[in-house]
Amino acid sequence: MPHIALPEGLPGILGPMHFRPETAAPLNDLAEVLLRGPSSLSRGERELIAAFVSDKNECFFCCTSHSAFAAHQLDGGKALVEAVKRDPSKAAISPKLRTLLTIAGQVQKSGRAVTTEAVAAARNAGATDVEIHDTVLIAAAFCMYNRYVDGLATNAPKEPEAYDGIAKQIVEHGYRATTPG
Amino acid sequence: MPHIALPEGLPGILGPMHFRPETAAPLNDLAEVLLRGPSSLSRGERELIAAFVSDKNECFFCCTSHSAFAAHQLDGGKALVEAVKRDPSKAAISPKLRTLLTIAGQVQKSGRAVTTEAVAAARNAGATDVEIHDTVLIAAAFCMYNRYVDGLATNAPKEPEAYDGIAKQIVEHGYRATTPG
Repeated sequence: MPHIALPEGLPGILGPMHFRPETAAPLNDLAEVLLRGPSSLSRGERELIAAFVSDKNECFFCCTSHSAFAAHQLDGGKALVEAVKRDPSKAAISPKLRTLLTIAGQVQKSGRAVTTEAVAAARNAGATDVEIHDTVLIAAAFCMYNRYVDGLATNAPKEPEAYDGIAKQIVEHGYRATTPG
Repeated sequence: MPHIALPEGLPGILGPMHFRPETAAPLNDLAEVLLRGPSSLSRGERELIAAFVSDKNECFFCCTSHSAFAAHQLDGGKALVEAVKRDPSKAAISPKLRTLLTIAGQVQKSGRAVTTEAVAAARNAGATDVEIHDTVLIAAAFCMYNRYVDGLATNAPKEPEAYDGIAKQIVEHGYRATTPG
């Protein structure tokens, strides 16, 4: 049961977003720019970073939903997403994305855990400064979204089909479309 | 030295914000709504929650700057802010704010660390659902801002006077005024 009285029937982050539309707007703007705005990282790759961090934070709703968003936008689909969460070093992803996931994993622990070696490895694998910046900010942002969703003990659907439905909405209409008002 | 090539001469979060204005806008919108928008928690109280979480995340720039923003907007000034960071249970703050800081401290560890007991204690001390919601989101948001600032190894001024200057700007003009335009 959620810690506060949230509107009923809304899964995960949608409950507190409808409870407090004033903060929902910038939260959705940030997700839209970071995960779907113009970038040399594909939308699927950025959702994969979000799912990877949410998995490490053990946030069931965010991990399941962003895994679905990634799967819908990556050629490898669900199998690839699960392989990345299990062990990025063995998953069929580009060497560059692998180094960015290392940075994301460090950010999940602490901003101070990011090493110059990890950044150098990303650069050697072809990552640009903007890609490194966005990886750090995506990982940091999911340390916020995950805490928001779980810190209020929001409800999360258990059935995987629910997340496929949400994924279709997000892939087609984006995050801003979920802002109430 | 920052991990990526940031514009020079800008302290802390302002470097990456000028590097990537697209993400700076929603980041500042969120800070403005959460820390300065209409609320039954004072601006000083909300900055205190931000400073408290940033201290736990050992983010020197965010902790020093939001401590200054809190001190400029609280009757107790710097002494009160330092007392809260040392031990909220012994600081001269309201019982309600003390319970909200307990929740913020739990969120800093993990969203899953927030207990029903801590939420019940806040409610017993007079906290509303919106105040509990905003406390969770402020704490979660600073788990993002702190990781963003330190994950990119941004430069932070060492002299306390620098933060008093930033505090005057923020208190007078708000966060959105720092978004590069």
